[in-house]
Amino acid sequence: MASKAEIRKQELREKLVAAAEIRIRRDGAGALRARDLATDAGCAVGAIYNAFDDMNAIVMAVNGRTFQALGLAVQRSLVGAQTQAPTDRLILMSHAYLGFAAENTRLWRALFDVRAEEVEVPDWYRAALEKLFANIAAPVAEIFPDKAPEDLALMVRALFSAVHGIVLLGLESRISGVPIAKIERMISEVLSRLA
Amino acid sequence: MASKAEIRKQELREKLVAAAEIRIRRDGAGALRARDLATDAGCAVGAIYNAFDDMNAIVMAVNGRTFQALGLAVQRSLVGAQTQAPTDRLILMSHAYLGFAAENTRLWRALFDVRAEEVEVPDWYRAALEKLFANIAAPVAEIFPDKAPEDLALMVRALFSAVHGIVLLGLESRISGVPIAKIERMISEVLSRLA
Repeated sequence: MASKAEIRKQELREKLVAAAEIRIRRDGAGALRARDLATDAGCAVGAIYNAFDDMNAIVMAVNGRTFQALGLAVQRSLVGAQTQAPTDRLILMSHAYLGFAAENTRLWRALFDVRAEEVEVPDWYRAALEKLFANIAAPVAEIFPDKAPEDLALMVRALFSAVHGIVLLGLESRISGVPIAKIERMISEVLSRLA
Repeated sequence: MASKAEIRKQELREKLVAAAEIRIRRDGAGALRARDLATDAGCAVGAIYNAFDDMNAIVMAVNGRTFQALGLAVQRSLVGAQTQAPTDRLILMSHAYLGFAAENTRLWRALFDVRAEEVEVPDWYRAALEKLFANIAAPVAEIFPDKAPEDLALMVRALFSAVHGIVLLGLESRISGVPIAKIERMISEVLSRLA
């Protein structure tokens, strides 16, 4: 059984992650400060480092929740669409990905702001990314029935990355100036040429 | 004629940009500090803000040089290849883009770390991006001879963004774990399906 101290620590963890999610959604992960989180959660700054190894661990916990929400949004886009052509399913999922990124831009950016060289990427994080890839593996396998598993995996990654790139540069609105409807069209055009 | 003070200011600007380029190449734009640049250039911290509006202006000046070097690398990939099929030229340029990004990862990342909401994007910056797009406009127009100019422009942006996404997630090695040769193959596979 968990001790009272452990329960309290777990409660503080949840409070801190919830507060961090609100702040990252509004200001981005780069603006997250321990002092602000301590105020939000009503604890001392030192207590944060008792609950988490460092600030990065809090960002990663928020990212875990974002990955789940993103995965749900992508899967929801397929409801009632399972009989559609694989390319159309890829387009539906990609548009859902775009929609999620557009509505939760800073939370979504935080997923990829994890600089590979700077922090240890936890296994569950890699697993969450793999799960996102898995959604598109089924239609990709239908489009390319003759590809070996290794080549299929490469194509899945390539397509995910390509769509990610279109969404990313599309949402950098002041630099590229592309409205959402146009980003949707770019995705549809590129994906529809694959099949 | 420029006054002695103006010449000295211009010399300091060049020194600061050269020093910033070395530091961004090594540590990334996020780690750039005025104090370190002052030491590098042998000037007072205050002199930096006499030569540039702020640190961001120095990063942008470095980015201008990076854009030029990147443009050269992309154009060089087409030397002797002008008679090749348009898809093959796109693949050559994309591989050059990947090569540049892989060799100058932090300088290249700094180009896109400009957060649109946070800073004013100068006109010359947008123009440099447009020039990068222009390189791929010619082969794209050959691949899609019937597309209207507006649709072609959209396709150019989509393809650039797609390749950018593949390069970006591919280079996040610890997260995605893809070697360069595989990233090249991903690019070739996606682009060769377009024509």
